[in-house]
Amino acid sequence: MTETNGKHDGGHIGVAVLGLGNVGSQVVRIIEEDAADLTARIGAPLVVRGIGVRNADRDRGVAPELLTDNIEALVSRDDVDIVVEVMGPVDPARKAILTALEHGKSVVTANKALMAVSAGELAQAAEHAHVDLYFEAAVAGAIPVIRPLTQSLAGDTVLRVAGIVNGTTNYILSEMDSTGADYASALADASALGYAEADPTADVEGYDAAAKAAILASIAFHTRVSADDVYREGITKVTAADFASARSLGCTIKLLAICERLTDGDGQQRVSARVYPALVPLEHPLAAVNGAFNAVVVEAEAAGRLMFYGQGAGGAPTASAVLGDLVMAARNRVQGGRGPRESKYAALPVAPIGVIPTRYYVNMNVADRPGVLSAVAAEFAKREVSIAEVRQEGMVDGGGQRCGARIVVVTHRATDAALSETVAALADLEVVSSINSVLRMEGTSE
Amino acid sequence: MTETNGKHDGGHIGVAVLGLGNVGSQVVRIIEEDAADLTARIGAPLVVRGIGVRNADRDRGVAPELLTDNIEALVSRDDVDIVVEVMGPVDPARKAILTALEHGKSVVTANKALMAVSAGELAQAAEHAHVDLYFEAAVAGAIPVIRPLTQSLAGDTVLRVAGIVNGTTNYILSEMDSTGADYASALADASALGYAEADPTADVEGYDAAAKAAILASIAFHTRVSADDVYREGITKVTAADFASARSLGCTIKLLAICERLTDGDGQQRVSARVYPALVPLEHPLAAVNGAFNAVVVEAEAAGRLMFYGQGAGGAPTASAVLGDLVMAARNRVQGGRGPRESKYAALPVAPIGVIPTRYYVNMNVADRPGVLSAVAAEFAKREVSIAEVRQEGMVDGGGQRCGARIVVVTHRATDAALSETVAALADLEVVSSINSVLRMEGTSE
Repeated sequence: MTETNGKHDGGHIGVAVLGLGNVGSQVVRIIEEDAADLTARIGAPLVVRGIGVRNADRDRGVAPELLTDNIEALVSRDDVDIVVEVMGPVDPARKAILTALEHGKSVVTANKALMAVSAGELAQAAEHAHVDLYFEAAVAGAIPVIRPLTQSLAGDTVLRVAGIVNGTTNYILSEMDSTGADYASALADASALGYAEADPTADVEGYDAAAKAAILASIAFHTRVSADDVYREGITKVTAADFASARSLGCTIKLLAICERLTDGDGQQRVSARVYPALVPLEHPLAAVNGAFNAVVVEAEAAGRLMFYGQGAGGAPTASAVLGDLVMAARNRVQGGRGPRESKYAALPVAPIGVIPTRYYVNMNVADRPGVLSAVAAEFAKREVSIAEVRQEGMVDGGGQRCGARIVVVTHRATDAALSETVAALADLEVVSSINSVLRMEGTSE
Repeated sequence: MTETNGKHDGGHIGVAVLGLGNVGSQVVRIIEEDAADLTARIGAPLVVRGIGVRNADRDRGVAPELLTDNIEALVSRDDVDIVVEVMGPVDPARKAILTALEHGKSVVTANKALMAVSAGELAQAAEHAHVDLYFEAAVAGAIPVIRPLTQSLAGDTVLRVAGIVNGTTNYILSEMDSTGADYASALADASALGYAEADPTADVEGYDAAAKAAILASIAFHTRVSADDVYREGITKVTAADFASARSLGCTIKLLAICERLTDGDGQQRVSARVYPALVPLEHPLAAVNGAFNAVVVEAEAAGRLMFYGQGAGGAPTASAVLGDLVMAARNRVQGGRGPRESKYAALPVAPIGVIPTRYYVNMNVADRPGVLSAVAAEFAKREVSIAEVRQEGMVDGGGQRCGARIVVVTHRATDAALSETVAALADLEVVSSINSVLRMEGTSE
């Protein structure tokens, strides 16, 4: 029951659960229902000592004496060995976890927002206390991603991680793709089905995906990337017309979190972490990841391309990841040790978006007269941006009269800075009446 | 340099590599080329102390003084901490690994044939010596599967594992599917491209996949399943006509390794482990896994369906998995501990194939006259096998004359015993001139 610094007396493993929402209630349920199996796997029984909630007086279907709103007291209890934090958001979770670590408790958290900003501070506290800090559930829910990256690929060199790591936006984009719906009605559907929150900003503006990108980049490249370092664009400007254009180019549109290792001309290594909606060729494995599913593609020097696929959210899937961490932390307690430490030795600078080589898709309305395409193409050429594909079509107004043309350009790879300068210049051209859309294209070899 | 029972003095981590083939040479190369990174991740440098080979006199592109044919002496050296076994087959690898473990060395092996028959004995020896025994590379090459199952899903209940775990047969079947080739010519292509060995028996008869199924079932269900417990059918009887029929049913054909947890009516749990070619619906994620790629689908109670995808063979991908294990074992040495033990507490009996509920696809030639379909259907009904789909088509001989009919039947789920009895009875019917093919169907909900 008591423990000091990772040594355990062989009795029970005491667990404090912070938060009793969707995930927390599943965690508590599985600890109870699968007690015999979990005990056999750990070598000692898990016992929930208390559950931290905001309001301890409400009936929540668990033994009322377990509930407490005094979280600081709960995580400091002598009979607690491991703290499971599934309450979010950053505060008060950060303080509760720091208190737990200071008191020598191992910590399991699903809090991506917190890990994306405070991973360094928390890892240091865990290191100091010689305890475990696990956070598999913070990225891609039930899908094992953190452990494969930190352990299975520990002897390889990861080059790139690209993932669909937000179920809400993937549901919306899949819906737009399959039904031709526009963004607003797909969002409304997602809200009605419970896939989008009342305030969907964190999802649709890419903040959630950016937090996960920061965690993935930190893990994959043995460095520290914070959510603030991640370049971010959301999906709110993606239109039904973009999906139609994408389809005609053999693509769909996905919100991607991309982490890359870049080597400059002089051998200096940098990392890039970015989130944006991008055209993805239909034959790319991420193109087939639909609805609320998540997937992460990892490219490593020796392993080649790996993909991890599954449910990225939801109470039970997230609880599965939390419980995996909990069992591992408990086993380490029973064995009197701790798991492998994070290795953060690289301290790689983060490259700004401007230097990243990407491909652009630009959709614009232009005047329907001779010389327009040439003027448009000249703007690309001036900045040494090579054009891969152009489509031009006439547009007609309500009365059936020609009223201009639409041009879609897909470029080869160029620096993001050159591409965005080109788009700005196009917008200034007298012959261009509007830039309808600018999206990047990913997952192609050019 | 010296170590006793998992405690390390903080100097070098000595490594002995057994085997210098495709995988071994990549392992040695990466240890050298990525030395700085690996040292940072481990906390101490890796040093290759020796390489065990059959003939130490041949030039192999490594420092000749590292080569030795005295494997027993190499794995017993005081300055060796970890033994990497990538020489296969079962013997002499088994003896070398046992000697290494007895001398307190941690062991990393890619030897699926060995792990499928001797996992219990080796795990016991590792437990006794309090050292690590890792074997991620034994299943699905570079794809992290063992660690996700043993760690990430340690708090969940795995219900089913279904995988494409043999690249040679998947290449052959993909080729037959995409080109309409028959088995013999697809095998010849695979041999010419180096995807099939001179004697392809281990691959095409399913022995390799059965070894991996044994390992997966043992890990997933916390029990011991040996290769001999795995029901096994190879792909040599799959025909071009089967692929044509499969396609018309919206399916392709894959060699699957399937591990399932079964609960009898009285609550008794059993496991099933089996390997056979099966029809798989095109919308199933495994249907899209083509060529030499591998994929493993895991279904767990809380996590739902997960998929792991990547390169299942080849020198570099397999080396990636070996090196991940090596870095983890080395980190444990540096930290003076060992990783989590295997948890084998379940001791579940293995169910015979006869009791397994499956679906059958049966393709037969019959006489072209009234009452035939009724006679055929009666044999299914007698054994309470429900028919899901029937296709009958007339056949014409060389002169354009009707010469019989072909019937394809797809059943609903029934016990394998009832299905195989039905097929035997059909073969005895006077109106059935030949049973062309019998394959199972997997990955459907019915």
